[in-house]
Amino acid sequence: MSHRLKNLSRGKGYAPGSLKSRTETIPGGNMPLQVITYDPDKITEKEIQISTTIEQLREYRDNKSITWINLNDVRCVDWVEKIGEAFDIHPLILEDIVNANQRPKNEEMDNYLFIAVKMLTYNEPQEFIDAEQVSFILTGSCVLTFQEKPGDVFEPVRERIRTGKGRIRRMGSDYLAYSLLDMLIDNYFLVMEKIGDRVEDLDEDLLTSIDNKHLKMLHHLKREIIFMRKSVWPLRETIGDLYRGEKAIIGKETSVYFGDLYDHTIQVIDTVEGLRDMVSGMLDTYLSQLGNKMNEVMKVLTIIATIFIPLTFIAGIYGMNFEFMPELKWKSGYFVTLSLMLIIALGMVLYFRRKKWL
Amino acid sequence: MSHRLKNLSRGKGYAPGSLKSRTETIPGGNMPLQVITYDPDKITEKEIQISTTIEQLREYRDNKSITWINLNDVRCVDWVEKIGEAFDIHPLILEDIVNANQRPKNEEMDNYLFIAVKMLTYNEPQEFIDAEQVSFILTGSCVLTFQEKPGDVFEPVRERIRTGKGRIRRMGSDYLAYSLLDMLIDNYFLVMEKIGDRVEDLDEDLLTSIDNKHLKMLHHLKREIIFMRKSVWPLRETIGDLYRGEKAIIGKETSVYFGDLYDHTIQVIDTVEGLRDMVSGMLDTYLSQLGNKMNEVMKVLTIIATIFIPLTFIAGIYGMNFEFMPELKWKSGYFVTLSLMLIIALGMVLYFRRKKWL
Amino acid sequence: MSHRLKNLSRGKGYAPGSLKSRTETIPGGNMPLQVITYDPDKITEKEIQISTTIEQLREYRDNKSITWINLNDVRCVDWVEKIGEAFDIHPLILEDIVNANQRPKNEEMDNYLFIAVKMLTYNEPQEFIDAEQVSFILTGSCVLTFQEKPGDVFEPVRERIRTGKGRIRRMGSDYLAYSLLDMLIDNYFLVMEKIGDRVEDLDEDLLTSIDNKHLKMLHHLKREIIFMRKSVWPLRETIGDLYRGEKAIIGKETSVYFGDLYDHTIQVIDTVEGLRDMVSGMLDTYLSQLGNKMNEVMKVLTIIATIFIPLTFIAGIYGMNFEFMPELKWKSGYFVTLSLMLIIALGMVLYFRRKKWL
Amino acid sequence: MSHRLKNLSRGKGYAPGSLKSRTETIPGGNMPLQVITYDPDKITEKEIQISTTIEQLREYRDNKSITWINLNDVRCVDWVEKIGEAFDIHPLILEDIVNANQRPKNEEMDNYLFIAVKMLTYNEPQEFIDAEQVSFILTGSCVLTFQEKPGDVFEPVRERIRTGKGRIRRMGSDYLAYSLLDMLIDNYFLVMEKIGDRVEDLDEDLLTSIDNKHLKMLHHLKREIIFMRKSVWPLRETIGDLYRGEKAIIGKETSVYFGDLYDHTIQVIDTVEGLRDMVSGMLDTYLSQLGNKMNEVMKVLTIIATIFIPLTFIAGIYGMNFEFMPELKWKSGYFVTLSLMLIIALGMVLYFRRKKWL
Amino acid sequence: MSHRLKNLSRGKGYAPGSLKSRTETIPGGNMPLQVITYDPDKITEKEIQISTTIEQLREYRDNKSITWINLNDVRCVDWVEKIGEAFDIHPLILEDIVNANQRPKNEEMDNYLFIAVKMLTYNEPQEFIDAEQVSFILTGSCVLTFQEKPGDVFEPVRERIRTGKGRIRRMGSDYLAYSLLDMLIDNYFLVMEKIGDRVEDLDEDLLTSIDNKHLKMLHHLKREIIFMRKSVWPLRETIGDLYRGEKAIIGKETSVYFGDLYDHTIQVIDTVEGLRDMVSGMLDTYLSQLGNKMNEVMKVLTIIATIFIPLTFIAGIYGMNFEFMPELKWKSGYFVTLSLMLIIALGMVLYFRRKKWL
Repeated sequence: MSHRLKNLSRGKGYAPGSLKSRTETIPGGNMPLQVITYDPDKITEKEIQISTTIEQLREYRDNKSITWINLNDVRCVDWVEKIGEAFDIHPLILEDIVNANQRPKNEEMDNYLFIAVKMLTYNEPQEFIDAEQVSFILTGSCVLTFQEKPGDVFEPVRERIRTGKGRIRRMGSDYLAYSLLDMLIDNYFLVMEKIGDRVEDLDEDLLTSIDNKHLKMLHHLKREIIFMRKSVWPLRETIGDLYRGEKAIIGKETSVYFGDLYDHTIQVIDTVEGLRDMVSGMLDTYLSQLGNKMNEVMKVLTIIATIFIPLTFIAGIYGMNFEFMPELKWKSGYFVTLSLMLIIALGMVLYFRRKKWL
Repeated sequence: MSHRLKNLSRGKGYAPGSLKSRTETIPGGNMPLQVITYDPDKITEKEIQISTTIEQLREYRDNKSITWINLNDVRCVDWVEKIGEAFDIHPLILEDIVNANQRPKNEEMDNYLFIAVKMLTYNEPQEFIDAEQVSFILTGSCVLTFQEKPGDVFEPVRERIRTGKGRIRRMGSDYLAYSLLDMLIDNYFLVMEKIGDRVEDLDEDLLTSIDNKHLKMLHHLKREIIFMRKSVWPLRETIGDLYRGEKAIIGKETSVYFGDLYDHTIQVIDTVEGLRDMVSGMLDTYLSQLGNKMNEVMKVLTIIATIFIPLTFIAGIYGMNFEFMPELKWKSGYFVTLSLMLIIALGMVLYFRRKKWL
Repeated sequence: MSHRLKNLSRGKGYAPGSLKSRTETIPGGNMPLQVITYDPDKITEKEIQISTTIEQLREYRDNKSITWINLNDVRCVDWVEKIGEAFDIHPLILEDIVNANQRPKNEEMDNYLFIAVKMLTYNEPQEFIDAEQVSFILTGSCVLTFQEKPGDVFEPVRERIRTGKGRIRRMGSDYLAYSLLDMLIDNYFLVMEKIGDRVEDLDEDLLTSIDNKHLKMLHHLKREIIFMRKSVWPLRETIGDLYRGEKAIIGKETSVYFGDLYDHTIQVIDTVEGLRDMVSGMLDTYLSQLGNKMNEVMKVLTIIATIFIPLTFIAGIYGMNFEFMPELKWKSGYFVTLSLMLIIALGMVLYFRRKKWL
Repeated sequence: MSHRLKNLSRGKGYAPGSLKSRTETIPGGNMPLQVITYDPDKITEKEIQISTTIEQLREYRDNKSITWINLNDVRCVDWVEKIGEAFDIHPLILEDIVNANQRPKNEEMDNYLFIAVKMLTYNEPQEFIDAEQVSFILTGSCVLTFQEKPGDVFEPVRERIRTGKGRIRRMGSDYLAYSLLDMLIDNYFLVMEKIGDRVEDLDEDLLTSIDNKHLKMLHHLKREIIFMRKSVWPLRETIGDLYRGEKAIIGKETSVYFGDLYDHTIQVIDTVEGLRDMVSGMLDTYLSQLGNKMNEVMKVLTIIATIFIPLTFIAGIYGMNFEFMPELKWKSGYFVTLSLMLIIALGMVLYFRRKKWL
Repeated sequence: MSHRLKNLSRGKGYAPGSLKSRTETIPGGNMPLQVITYDPDKITEKEIQISTTIEQLREYRDNKSITWINLNDVRCVDWVEKIGEAFDIHPLILEDIVNANQRPKNEEMDNYLFIAVKMLTYNEPQEFIDAEQVSFILTGSCVLTFQEKPGDVFEPVRERIRTGKGRIRRMGSDYLAYSLLDMLIDNYFLVMEKIGDRVEDLDEDLLTSIDNKHLKMLHHLKREIIFMRKSVWPLRETIGDLYRGEKAIIGKETSVYFGDLYDHTIQVIDTVEGLRDMVSGMLDTYLSQLGNKMNEVMKVLTIIATIFIPLTFIAGIYGMNFEFMPELKWKSGYFVTLSLMLIIALGMVLYFRRKKWL
């Protein structure tokens, strides 16, 4: 959880809007910008270097063709600043892009739309959910995406653009933004299926045996689900806003698609809530199983102790060394005593039977 | 639960609106379409094959008579596509029909209304609730229904259409849609009665004995009820919307009936919530019963141990082999000791009486 | 609880609005209709038979005098149908009257107002709350009431009409409806006082002793309170609607009285919630008392066992039959051993004192 | 709690608005009315008797000076009726004044404003919160206050009026009403401080010892806080309404003061919620402490039993009377056995050390 | 917690708006006022004494330059009164400034805006959160800040004003107020990081060992987080109001910054809720670990007791002193008995193995 709480404060001495405040930075030279430009007829894909001038960047902005500019690592503050200048982005928005701890949100500015969402991936070996902020800037003809680190889930969209499959090449930048967001949210389902598998495995394990390891796993899963929930709930508002709100930049035709995206978001929330309920129920099961087990242990102890303690007492009596103990002299004393013990033992067993302990 | 979490993601590489993405498909040739056409005077029932042309389908659409077209299995993507073309259905709606994991919802398009709800049936032998998505497309004179698999609860409506009982033959397609939805929701009550019977049986069992089997049953029922709850809550909004919202396609006269349907939905929700409260209360009962039982076990152990341990100690004393132990020589030593033991035992019993443990 | 879950579905094969679907019926001939007609000057009370014509019933409707028509048993479907025809009641409303499982609600139709509420009475011997639906139809000059079974709480209103006490004879049918509803809701307080008495008795009992019987009583009371709560919450909306909503049939002067009724409803809800909190708190008390008691039992066991087990061990040592055990030969061996045992016992007692177990 | 549930129903046979229904009454002759009349220049304070005529009362109403009329005991139904007639109060309002079980609320009538709130005082010896309804009628120049029983918290306001301190003498009747309400709500803080002291004392006690007495105190405090909460929440709406709502009778200048009063109300709610959280947390602490204690008790028992039971068994073996037991003949048998016992005991102690039980 | 409940009531006998009511006061002479005046070109910093006249103070108010006036200790009622007079502040606002127990809130008056928020700092040695109220009065060109005690988190803002870094020197008083609030809320993150560190440390400790000390720490942290939560939630409304509400005094350009501040506030709330969930989960862990541990203790006891009690009983039998006990005479009696004991012990061990207790 630790990594999820750090670096929230801007840091002493930095003014609002200064990009160098919270993150360690890396030089822009190491990280080219990925640019895809397309229209229904043709498509160009290239990588541009930090030496590109602001005017060259502005050409993409003013171009009729749809352009998707992707930065793989927001620690390249040089790039963020250059893009910010080229596209006239407000410094606070740039700060939100760089300091990647934002709640999912959208903000409409004069001539662009800012959207920040989380890209979730499931880190299989370590069994936790990895969250990375992806920021979108949507202008009339461009979509700018900023990721926290290289590696994304957008490859199928790139493929669809390249092959011209579906309607993506014929539609505007708003449809491109939709396609990318759709891919992100579709990936949420994959993460949830994996978490769901873990939950179901554990659920079956709990029916046969309970131990500390299961409890730890349960708490771990509960935390992952709570973390997921926190990422997903604000998404509802963010996407709902894109769909309902009259954002100038989202066309009527694309708006239907955002409606579909909103439905998916609601479904994600439903699924997360379902998982949460399931894990809560499992914690209840765990506790009542624990109670059952304790009860069983106690019963074994009580049965054994309750049968043998009185018998041992009787043996103790005839183990006393008094000189005058008439029974000791009886020929059948020993066998009478043994029989008495047997009768007491049987009586106890019958009593426990009646109590349904046996 | 497993089957309820799978197949939520669209799958990599498929564009939004493509029907072949998430489901395995079956050829349309295996599955005829059921068509019932009626007006107050006459009724025709037939099955049409996949070879039917789009123009023939459009005749139903443009006909004055009311037509109900039913597809029994949405995996027949061929049919869905053909109907989609004939009735000008938006690709995203077709995708929602085919990928039958939708939340109950309605969507009003230019000239038709899309409604997706769950048909619930209770799988008696396996004791779980079976949910199947039924999608409705409602146009001016047609109702199209798409089911996930053959077998439905609509037979009484078919019967009413055939016999002309009630007002169904005299009213429009909106009343037909209402009748089908009403039948679906009426069936919810049957499912709940069955679940309710299980809950009550278990409730009585819990009063006499508690064991692990009951706990498992309890958790199973709780899950079924939570699952039901998730299906039912969004229905409230969906149906409420049909009743209040000024849907162009639902006439004023039929709107009263949708109001009645809305009342039923609220009642379903109330009943589900009542069952949920009952099951939660039973879990509390279970835990407090477990505590009671443990207490009783402990008391038995404590009473037996507390009475006999001191007595055994006394017997132990006179079992010691010291050469000089004056009491051992006394003639009445044995009987005095026995009496002492009796007095101690009686004292203990009185003490437990006063503590109300006996 | 059983009787509260049954008969919710309309039953297969019945069209919406058909009265004979869900209830067993009784012939109208067995059940006369009670009719009270009054104006400030005079009052007539009579019982009319099923042979009365629809025209005769309509006279009441068109009369200037205020008329209260009461049907004691809605299973007399003949009467419901006849009244429905005479007063032009919508078939769905008639269905709601006959199938007496409605949520409290009101519905404004063109020229009448339909109100369905629950009449609660406390079944003292069996200790549960009995709920009966009372449906009101309020027209300009008539109040029609439909009960589920004979026996009601309206006698004081009849008395007030007969004696002309209060302003009831001078006011319209809306005031009559208010008076009846007021009487119903006033009766809720009586039911709650009785439940409250049970709760308080139990609360005192729990302070002195806890056993399974108390737990069952607690769960029984909790269910009754939850049942009450479910009846009462929708009332808030129903009555609030009558008070705020501009219902054409409720005059401005009477509206103040409905405001007062609304306040009473809120107070009923507050009281029910108070009882619920109290019962929840008692369940907590029960569980913590159980924990306390278990703790006490354990302590007794531990003290006795911990004192005597070491002593018995010492006695066991000197009970061994080794030939060479020097202490056994000592003259004072026995008394030294006894003293040692005493010292150990006292040390244990001091230890428990310090631990505050004694 | 008992006294808080009684007398909620109006009682059979009484019409709405009749004052003699729910309360036992006392004759008005025993209880004079306290009247304070003031303007910036002068102040008169007197007590008037039940013989005062309605016309004399109306003079106060029509006077330009501000008049505060206080009735100390609403069981003086004679006074309530007379005042009601003189000031034209609606019978339902009079009923609300007399039947002092109202939820805090305000009601605006044609020419006066009715406010009902609770005056809370802390009954120190019996440690419970005493609630008394105070009803306000606010007209253009008069404030009428009705208390349930003699004794109030208004003395400082009387003093401010007498001395002319603050702006009270220069402002209207709305400011007088504000001053009285402010005094009432300020007193809530005093009650809460006292409850808070009890809570904190208990909280400290719980850290050192837990027993049944503490549990009872905890539940008692929880109930008092819940009771307080129920009195305080509706106040929010009541006061908020006075502040925001455009009540004709509350001037713009005074409205700021009602805003301040509203802030205090919110603060009262915050404090009550804080206390509630604290008490809930303490119940959790209690239960986990109980668990800790049980664990400790069990550990002591287990350690003692586990060490001595095996040793006693060994002693038992050599206490057997078999004729042929070679060890008994050994010279060192006794010492070897004692050493063996010591080794076993030490082994056990080491085992418990490793388990961190010692 | 104690210090957080005290001094909420205004105190008997004080009129609303009187500053000397709730706090002990200190003379203004001991506490100079810190004044910073700046415009884009120059900056003056000075301290002024209580001898400053009201006219001199009003010069700051009417000046074009931006002035920040800071009072370090609101117990200097002399200063508060003088400033109140110079800037025409409403007496109730002054009371809110002096009685520093306000909920975070803002109030817009005719020509100034009042904002009260909490400055939180983490008292590291005593491990609790220190809260201090900071009140802001924002006029066209001045920001007045009132602190409860010397020492604040505003130093970086002073530094930015002095160095002219960022846009602070070029913007108005609204931007200055924003910068100060931003610094305050940024500090919340630091407090939360520290609390978060404690929570994580404890979380790790709980995995290896649980004892009373951990429980106390857990409850302490829970309280601190609840306290934090209570400070943070009303902030949402307060800041949201500044951002959305059309406050005349906040310019359009600065409004964007308040939007950013609002986002941070939401993030603070998210983080606090996350911590709360985590601590709640840890309490669950604690309780289930406790159950696990108890189970383990019980198992050890049961295993030892169940193995040795029957063996001891057998030894007891052959320790009896009956004259006629044939086994005692057998040559191999002793060894047969020992073998029998061994077999019983092994049987028990196998039984526990099968039960998975070993």
